[in-house]
Amino acid sequence: MTLEVGVLGYRFMGKAHANALSRLSMFFPDAPEVERSVLVGRDEDALSDAADQLGFESIATDWEAVVDDVDVFYNLGPNHVHAEPSIAALEAGTPVFCEKPLAPTLAEAERMADAAAEAGVPNGTAFNYRFVPAIQHAKGLLEAGELGEIHHVRGRYLQDWLVDPEAPWSWRNDAEMAGSGALGDLGAHTVDLLRFLVGDDDLAGEMERVSGHLQTFVDERPVDGSDEMRSVTVDDAYSAQVEFEHGAMGTLEASRFATGHKNDHTIEIHGSKGSLRFSLERLNELEVMRADENRGYETVLVTDEDDPYVDHWWPPGHVLGWEHTFVHENYEFLSAVASGDTFEPSFADGLAAQRVLAAIEASDEKREWVSIS
Amino acid sequence: MTLEVGVLGYRFMGKAHANALSRLSMFFPDAPEVERSVLVGRDEDALSDAADQLGFESIATDWEAVVDDVDVFYNLGPNHVHAEPSIAALEAGTPVFCEKPLAPTLAEAERMADAAAEAGVPNGTAFNYRFVPAIQHAKGLLEAGELGEIHHVRGRYLQDWLVDPEAPWSWRNDAEMAGSGALGDLGAHTVDLLRFLVGDDDLAGEMERVSGHLQTFVDERPVDGSDEMRSVTVDDAYSAQVEFEHGAMGTLEASRFATGHKNDHTIEIHGSKGSLRFSLERLNELEVMRADENRGYETVLVTDEDDPYVDHWWPPGHVLGWEHTFVHENYEFLSAVASGDTFEPSFADGLAAQRVLAAIEASDEKREWVSIS
Amino acid sequence: MTLEVGVLGYRFMGKAHANALSRLSMFFPDAPEVERSVLVGRDEDALSDAADQLGFESIATDWEAVVDDVDVFYNLGPNHVHAEPSIAALEAGTPVFCEKPLAPTLAEAERMADAAAEAGVPNGTAFNYRFVPAIQHAKGLLEAGELGEIHHVRGRYLQDWLVDPEAPWSWRNDAEMAGSGALGDLGAHTVDLLRFLVGDDDLAGEMERVSGHLQTFVDERPVDGSDEMRSVTVDDAYSAQVEFEHGAMGTLEASRFATGHKNDHTIEIHGSKGSLRFSLERLNELEVMRADENRGYETVLVTDEDDPYVDHWWPPGHVLGWEHTFVHENYEFLSAVASGDTFEPSFADGLAAQRVLAAIEASDEKREWVSIS
Amino acid sequence: MTLEVGVLGYRFMGKAHANALSRLSMFFPDAPEVERSVLVGRDEDALSDAADQLGFESIATDWEAVVDDVDVFYNLGPNHVHAEPSIAALEAGTPVFCEKPLAPTLAEAERMADAAAEAGVPNGTAFNYRFVPAIQHAKGLLEAGELGEIHHVRGRYLQDWLVDPEAPWSWRNDAEMAGSGALGDLGAHTVDLLRFLVGDDDLAGEMERVSGHLQTFVDERPVDGSDEMRSVTVDDAYSAQVEFEHGAMGTLEASRFATGHKNDHTIEIHGSKGSLRFSLERLNELEVMRADENRGYETVLVTDEDDPYVDHWWPPGHVLGWEHTFVHENYEFLSAVASGDTFEPSFADGLAAQRVLAAIEASDEKREWVSIS
Repeated sequence: MTLEVGVLGYRFMGKAHANALSRLSMFFPDAPEVERSVLVGRDEDALSDAADQLGFESIATDWEAVVDDVDVFYNLGPNHVHAEPSIAALEAGTPVFCEKPLAPTLAEAERMADAAAEAGVPNGTAFNYRFVPAIQHAKGLLEAGELGEIHHVRGRYLQDWLVDPEAPWSWRNDAEMAGSGALGDLGAHTVDLLRFLVGDDDLAGEMERVSGHLQTFVDERPVDGSDEMRSVTVDDAYSAQVEFEHGAMGTLEASRFATGHKNDHTIEIHGSKGSLRFSLERLNELEVMRADENRGYETVLVTDEDDPYVDHWWPPGHVLGWEHTFVHENYEFLSAVASGDTFEPSFADGLAAQRVLAAIEASDEKREWVSIS
Repeated sequence: MTLEVGVLGYRFMGKAHANALSRLSMFFPDAPEVERSVLVGRDEDALSDAADQLGFESIATDWEAVVDDVDVFYNLGPNHVHAEPSIAALEAGTPVFCEKPLAPTLAEAERMADAAAEAGVPNGTAFNYRFVPAIQHAKGLLEAGELGEIHHVRGRYLQDWLVDPEAPWSWRNDAEMAGSGALGDLGAHTVDLLRFLVGDDDLAGEMERVSGHLQTFVDERPVDGSDEMRSVTVDDAYSAQVEFEHGAMGTLEASRFATGHKNDHTIEIHGSKGSLRFSLERLNELEVMRADENRGYETVLVTDEDDPYVDHWWPPGHVLGWEHTFVHENYEFLSAVASGDTFEPSFADGLAAQRVLAAIEASDEKREWVSIS
Repeated sequence: MTLEVGVLGYRFMGKAHANALSRLSMFFPDAPEVERSVLVGRDEDALSDAADQLGFESIATDWEAVVDDVDVFYNLGPNHVHAEPSIAALEAGTPVFCEKPLAPTLAEAERMADAAAEAGVPNGTAFNYRFVPAIQHAKGLLEAGELGEIHHVRGRYLQDWLVDPEAPWSWRNDAEMAGSGALGDLGAHTVDLLRFLVGDDDLAGEMERVSGHLQTFVDERPVDGSDEMRSVTVDDAYSAQVEFEHGAMGTLEASRFATGHKNDHTIEIHGSKGSLRFSLERLNELEVMRADENRGYETVLVTDEDDPYVDHWWPPGHVLGWEHTFVHENYEFLSAVASGDTFEPSFADGLAAQRVLAAIEASDEKREWVSIS
Repeated sequence: MTLEVGVLGYRFMGKAHANALSRLSMFFPDAPEVERSVLVGRDEDALSDAADQLGFESIATDWEAVVDDVDVFYNLGPNHVHAEPSIAALEAGTPVFCEKPLAPTLAEAERMADAAAEAGVPNGTAFNYRFVPAIQHAKGLLEAGELGEIHHVRGRYLQDWLVDPEAPWSWRNDAEMAGSGALGDLGAHTVDLLRFLVGDDDLAGEMERVSGHLQTFVDERPVDGSDEMRSVTVDDAYSAQVEFEHGAMGTLEASRFATGHKNDHTIEIHGSKGSLRFSLERLNELEVMRADENRGYETVLVTDEDDPYVDHWWPPGHVLGWEHTFVHENYEFLSAVASGDTFEPSFADGLAAQRVLAAIEASDEKREWVSIS
């Protein structure tokens, strides 16, 4: 059986997933066979060029016809077009894989998660950083209790592409289309990664309460190629304090104004028996401190044969890149589709992250702590 | 003229300052001459031994007699004995140098700052980290506008000496004696350092509002050498979000439960033109990123001849240690005493830090943002 | 026109190049079209499986037929089968791309380079590390004179897969098949990379004299799955001192016994105006120190849009992996084939590296410095 | 009993040792009492000022009278005045502590070591880096066999104070006065540190053979404050390959032309069971990799209470500086003087290092490997 995949969106995420799909046969021969069947968008010319380059059989400008037809539907469009096509696909019984954040508003995310629960087909939110080998290795250490009781959690996602006030306006600066700014775009990754790593009930448990702070440093930006200025209606940066179910405390942060940082997603965890540090810009490495065996952090290069996913690739020390996380993620999602198993992170996980983001926004408005759910 | 110095306290801080005083003549020949005149404490035997080792001429168990007699009074006792002797000294017209935090309560800190203002003699709060050459170098870059407009500030002070629940109870775990825990002991340093670095009106300005969170992970601890358990009535860790006067946002954190971190005080600043990073465990280094000249952080070893204080010591690359910050601090304070100049950080600076700490505590209780002053 | 590529070798390097070929169309749309035409080997079953997985049209066990037939021949077999098929292909006018080191002996390498010169078709030695973006960035800085006159060069390639004396014998331990051990396998990369970076006449120039030292720590090893022990007839590690044409001095080193290092290829260069450092395990980064602008090394993440090759991939901060070097290398080689341009590193470059390796071996035997002819 | 110490030399090393002597009573109360008795030099005015600042009781311009009179003689003058006064002191039965390298020539070093053996009084060569806590910790790990059999050793000492061709000529550039350049000044430290760490017979054993290379990049330099140019008759940099008694191989290097490096003395060791790394510019840290417990290097902050010498100073995480190595060294030497024990590194150790340096020079001249007698 070959899975026919329909993909909405052909820009950054479209390319990242098309690439991942194209690499499965060589590196994950046990993955289901897939056909990049149809690429969906609005501009036929651009779409046609993209389909050629990305290896799609056909194109379509009408997603409604597609979601019914294909075996799997990937929704990689901007946030404001996540809900409708995804729900339609689910209602048609088509498994859906959707980019993060799940939706620009909590209400839409809830509708999507409801549709997924109703449909009973595999569904996934594309939190690709769960599939970094070093993160999977961290998860293994945490699950095995190697860090003990969790006390502190820190997540920080730093970029700097908006620090120049002349950087042009884009849909990512618009509340209608993006929902939020750094919070939804970057914070969603952080919240999901922390839920994945320490959210288990025998670790920190879920995030229960947050205090949030959003900030917009530049209020309007030029529209590219014109004199027009358009309002920035989302946050340029956010910070939050978090209380976890079992008493751990956390701080979260993201910014598009962190001069010198391009894509620096950092996670730090301190437990009663050890600590962990991870940075996306050095994604092959995990820093591990286990009080029983270490006096300081040990830099583990997570490229050994028995490290997660690594045996599919290259010998020890031959490092992977950012894009490999998409291959792993697609492999897992499509395997779930083929076997009918559930996939995590699901739409429910996407919604759970969204609840945290919504609580951070609510807290910022009320200027007080807000409970999640 | 030789300044006769009276010192209350002969433990950790007593030794750190006695050492600093003893080294001035060799390395800072333009410092005023000082005599370690009298060491003040309660236990005569211990005091006498300490005076021998630390090079004091005499001992006294009655600070009241001392504060009048000496040319300078150093108050290095536990937090709850900061106020009374310091105020008495100031009322006697004796310059006072007091360890941080200025007092266990905001009320006492205010009384102390009032007394200092009244007395009109040099007074100082011992925020020694201002006197790290790398921090002075950072201050220079910031003052020169090299980082541009300040957007983000981060301060984190991590230790792990209480992560073992069997670690014994001490006065530092007691609200009466210490005021607060990690907040006052460690957070006071962070708040002062950030005020020093970005608090100028043409940078971030003062901290205006905070949202705080305090946590005690272990509620009671054994009294050393007995079966008795005593309550921990202070925080083991705190976090805070901060809004600065001119729009910068910050996160603060300290913990005594950060497994693997011994004395890790980290400062990070992002401005529109550059970024800085500093860690106390590598105190000879400053990481600098200036967008005009750098693409990433540059590790500056702040040991060149024209770096702050360095010409007093050794050639480039011959690194200094933690204790040197006390020598610089004592040099500056005693020079101010000799010349009658004001010294910073003063009691007023100690009070300003205290106001922030008090606001963090108040915010933690109210579960909402609190304005400072 | 589609280039039909014949590939000898289907293990590690076969997979690395097959992967590279498969990715050109999506990421380098201006590359010539290629067909993975025929995969050459000895064991038909294994070959057939490999061809399926690696996407080859057909298989062949007889390279002699293939080298004539295809548009391009890739020789990715063990070192002792580099010469004959490569020379046959060149004699047939077929462009050849050969893995490094060019041959197990200097004599064979000379024959191969002669054949390449004779044939006048594009030929390449697969020194893939020239195609790391950070290395290309370093080359740009060096060519622009940013480091000034070169004084010191250091190259070190550390692995640890033989430190266990029970690690099984393989062809890489055999002088007949491999030529040398760490020297040829790892040292060849180092020598080529240094020639690439500083070998220009206005930089350090060529390596002129070497003093070498080879060492075998474990003399025999078990044959996998048997009781038999077989002799190790190559070096486990080598070191060398180098004199460059214009006075720079260098040290080289490689080992398969460097416990804790998996694939740690490090280059360090000091010039009169600056210094550079690179490590393959952090291949997205280049450490740069330019005395005019820096006081210490600056960590440059070489992932910006205008960095070499990066615009073909992902946005800034989205790091690449080891395998991407093969894509860049294949892109350049195949573009040269399509246009008829020469490609570097050529067989002549492969030979030049070989001369250095041979001189290191000769020096080790004579216990004296040896000139590189 | 108070030891009266006479010190020849009042510049950099004079200050470093005077400081060390002044700090013993506060931090090493079990050290013998010492009096900075007499400071010896040629220029009475400068000497008198120095004695005041460094805390000496008296001055003398005639070392011959002094060496007899004092309880201990410190020879901290330039290399060419090491032999005569040291030998005279030893002949007078006075313990001698001499700066490194022991002498400008091997012949003089031999005479000094002979005199020390003859005298039978404590004698020391001032290789202060043995007394870095992190180095002592490394020594402990090595002695306990934690690294297994030693395969690789690397030592590198990088400075850049001569990279500017206009940097003025000094005695350190003169063969008569200094013996050699980077080799003797910096290489002596490296050789001693490696002998200390791995020279034991159950580790690598002594260095047996070397291949050396010396280079002078700038042949003449201006005399400060004049138009005169004077010849540089020593090396600006050296490299060497080393064979150890039990088969380990090593590379050594030092330079005064390593742009961007101020005082970067690095040691790296790979054994069959683990590896170590140390850098003087981060002297509180030791990087440790033990294959049984680690997958990568662990950064150990060697500031715990039970780390060597640390309990004399400050709590964990309160880092020490370069000068503390002198305090430890003086403590050990003077304790040996007081008890009559032998001290290491002795003159014999100074001579052993010198033999290696001489062999490196001889090898550089002969262009072949040279055995260390």
